[in-house]
Amino acid sequence: MTVSPLAPAAFPELPVIEGVRFAAVAAGIKYKGRDDVMLALLDPGSVVAGVFTRSATRSAPVLDCQAKLGTDSDQGAAFLVNSGNSNAFTGKAGDGSVAAICKAVAEATKLPETRIFTSSTGVIGQPLPHDRIIAKLDEAVSALSRHDLAASAKAIMTTDTFPKGAAREIMVDGKPVKIAGVAKGSGMIAPDMATMLVYVFTDAKISRAALQEIVSNANARTFNNITVDSDTSTSDTLLMAATGASGVSVEGNADFATAVEDVFRDLAHLVVKDGEGATKFVTVNVTGAATDEDARTHALSIANSPLVKTAIAGEDPNWGRIVMAVGKSGAKADRDALTIRFGNILVAEKGWVSPDYQEEQGAAVMKQPEISIDVDIGLGHGAATVWTCDLTHGYISINADYRS
Amino acid sequence: MTVSPLAPAAFPELPVIEGVRFAAVAAGIKYKGRDDVMLALLDPGSVVAGVFTRSATRSAPVLDCQAKLGTDSDQGAAFLVNSGNSNAFTGKAGDGSVAAICKAVAEATKLPETRIFTSSTGVIGQPLPHDRIIAKLDEAVSALSRHDLAASAKAIMTTDTFPKGAAREIMVDGKPVKIAGVAKGSGMIAPDMATMLVYVFTDAKISRAALQEIVSNANARTFNNITVDSDTSTSDTLLMAATGASGVSVEGNADFATAVEDVFRDLAHLVVKDGEGATKFVTVNVTGAATDEDARTHALSIANSPLVKTAIAGEDPNWGRIVMAVGKSGAKADRDALTIRFGNILVAEKGWVSPDYQEEQGAAVMKQPEISIDVDIGLGHGAATVWTCDLTHGYISINADYRS
Repeated sequence: MTVSPLAPAAFPELPVIEGVRFAAVAAGIKYKGRDDVMLALLDPGSVVAGVFTRSATRSAPVLDCQAKLGTDSDQGAAFLVNSGNSNAFTGKAGDGSVAAICKAVAEATKLPETRIFTSSTGVIGQPLPHDRIIAKLDEAVSALSRHDLAASAKAIMTTDTFPKGAAREIMVDGKPVKIAGVAKGSGMIAPDMATMLVYVFTDAKISRAALQEIVSNANARTFNNITVDSDTSTSDTLLMAATGASGVSVEGNADFATAVEDVFRDLAHLVVKDGEGATKFVTVNVTGAATDEDARTHALSIANSPLVKTAIAGEDPNWGRIVMAVGKSGAKADRDALTIRFGNILVAEKGWVSPDYQEEQGAAVMKQPEISIDVDIGLGHGAATVWTCDLTHGYISINADYRS
Repeated sequence: MTVSPLAPAAFPELPVIEGVRFAAVAAGIKYKGRDDVMLALLDPGSVVAGVFTRSATRSAPVLDCQAKLGTDSDQGAAFLVNSGNSNAFTGKAGDGSVAAICKAVAEATKLPETRIFTSSTGVIGQPLPHDRIIAKLDEAVSALSRHDLAASAKAIMTTDTFPKGAAREIMVDGKPVKIAGVAKGSGMIAPDMATMLVYVFTDAKISRAALQEIVSNANARTFNNITVDSDTSTSDTLLMAATGASGVSVEGNADFATAVEDVFRDLAHLVVKDGEGATKFVTVNVTGAATDEDARTHALSIANSPLVKTAIAGEDPNWGRIVMAVGKSGAKADRDALTIRFGNILVAEKGWVSPDYQEEQGAAVMKQPEISIDVDIGLGHGAATVWTCDLTHGYISINADYRS
């Protein structure tokens, strides 16, 4: 598979996070000759927070993770993630696979089953060959290393075209606090939809409840505001763990919350940049809406519109389709109060094309690989930003030009 | 342009509707060498009902029609429709064009301006050259004929690949009542989104309020349940007129309401069959939902999902994507209660693939040009049907592979 034209030049240097070790092993679940299982083992005292897909047809591992989060524990924890099979829509057998994996990981790591969090990504509707994962657990535990987060980024890939990582370091009271994370998505694996998985680690000291609040807020402003094709996976999972190994408390520290959001945003952008068939990375900024919620509704309506996304693919500065998308969103708008900019070019205002606008100006913006579309609704102070990609022949080829 | 592979073999024979006459003329608004204006002149005593786009950025003619509907009049009425320019997002100038056309049509037809209903479809954001329309009004009035509804179907086409018409005749107290209509959509015209326009006529005798109720109800079950790409036009308009010329009252007659709905459904299906790049006509039936509203939410989620639509384009019986679309819809669902059928093939039940299902069976269904996807949610008695088409390279080519 060709690497996305929007991929970064290189995988970033990720810092070592004290208190957590990683291993990546090859269990042969579906892929041959590559790692397909990631294990992260967290020292006692670590806290875990998470957010998940809101799908009503969530996969068995998602339901299991949700049931286990939300209680405090001093006993450490483990994340076990496999690619190649999503264990989604596998009926009661799917629950059985999760239970079997959790039991085996608990034995191999000497942790209680309630502290084992699993994710699966890949083919839907086929029984997960969990014995293959279990057979590799001792090897994984032996291989645990503080340095292998980058290898984990590769092990969780399905048809992602590049591994995704991001990190930040902040100073708190003169001491460093580190955050590092990996993500996969939104590659496609027949016959399933894209799934987004994210694992972020920090050596900061923080309560579970405070970490969960930071994770939920940062997620709302980052991963919840990206869209490739408006389709939601049954398996989307984000887990974040704080080991406390730095000894530095970040409870109530705004810089820490900002750094977490920065890592989330970096990873979210990488997911969009690996969007199926993507050739353009698009930032949709909506301002002047009646409320922030209305602004987000408008921004998602623009970012999900097939007509807007195909116009971007065609490098067509088609502001009429932006007007259409605002109009159909259901949020408040006034035709004659809209202002639309492509990049810093004023395209339309007061319900019509701007008198100074030249089509060549808009066309020049559209030729860039990264494009911003700014829409002011002209009604209030609500604002939101959403990130998306274009809709191309590549998307159709990946999703239609095969038989599963 | 190639005619859609889903087009019917021929345009249907439309019955003469007494009390209304039609003309189609060539005003050269954008297209050369073809009719681009339709005039329908309704005799005194006719009543008019309508439904319109809910877009917050509605075009000037839509706003004008909405302001004029809802009052009774004995003075007759006229519909004036042009293709080639949608007069949408044209600021205050757009309102001026509508006023100028209504004034001129009123003079040419000896009707009050309040009884002139106009629609425009075509390019967005460019001033409508309304003088070209006005210059042709006398010619249009002279050409009025009871037989030219079929010619009107052609005059309102933009990039539609075939004209669309439908009719029904019912007997009431031993006397015939006729209904005939034409539609355009969802062809694309640069740089605008698809627009749906529908004009239906009957010689039945009925009050305006009763006709409006029938139109609103039938629209909710037909045109409101079709989707090509989830994008909503700023100009969508449906107008229906009853001339009363048959002398037959249909007030409270259920057969009449059914016949109107049948005509609407026929036209709605034709619009989908002319969907951009469409190669498959898809009926999505959802049953067993908690409510009818939930059923419609699930059905639209399936019908609008790019992953479902590309799977259909690839003739891939990808039931996993149906599960995904149900899960993301926001309406109530239970993973382990879902039943999915492609055609009459049971594919998945109780949260997993059906034990008797063979992939070849699903694949055979998917090869047909018309496909039904039946989903039982397993929770209640809510039901809904939605019609859509597949998402193909043709859609991308039409919408991305040009510069306006």
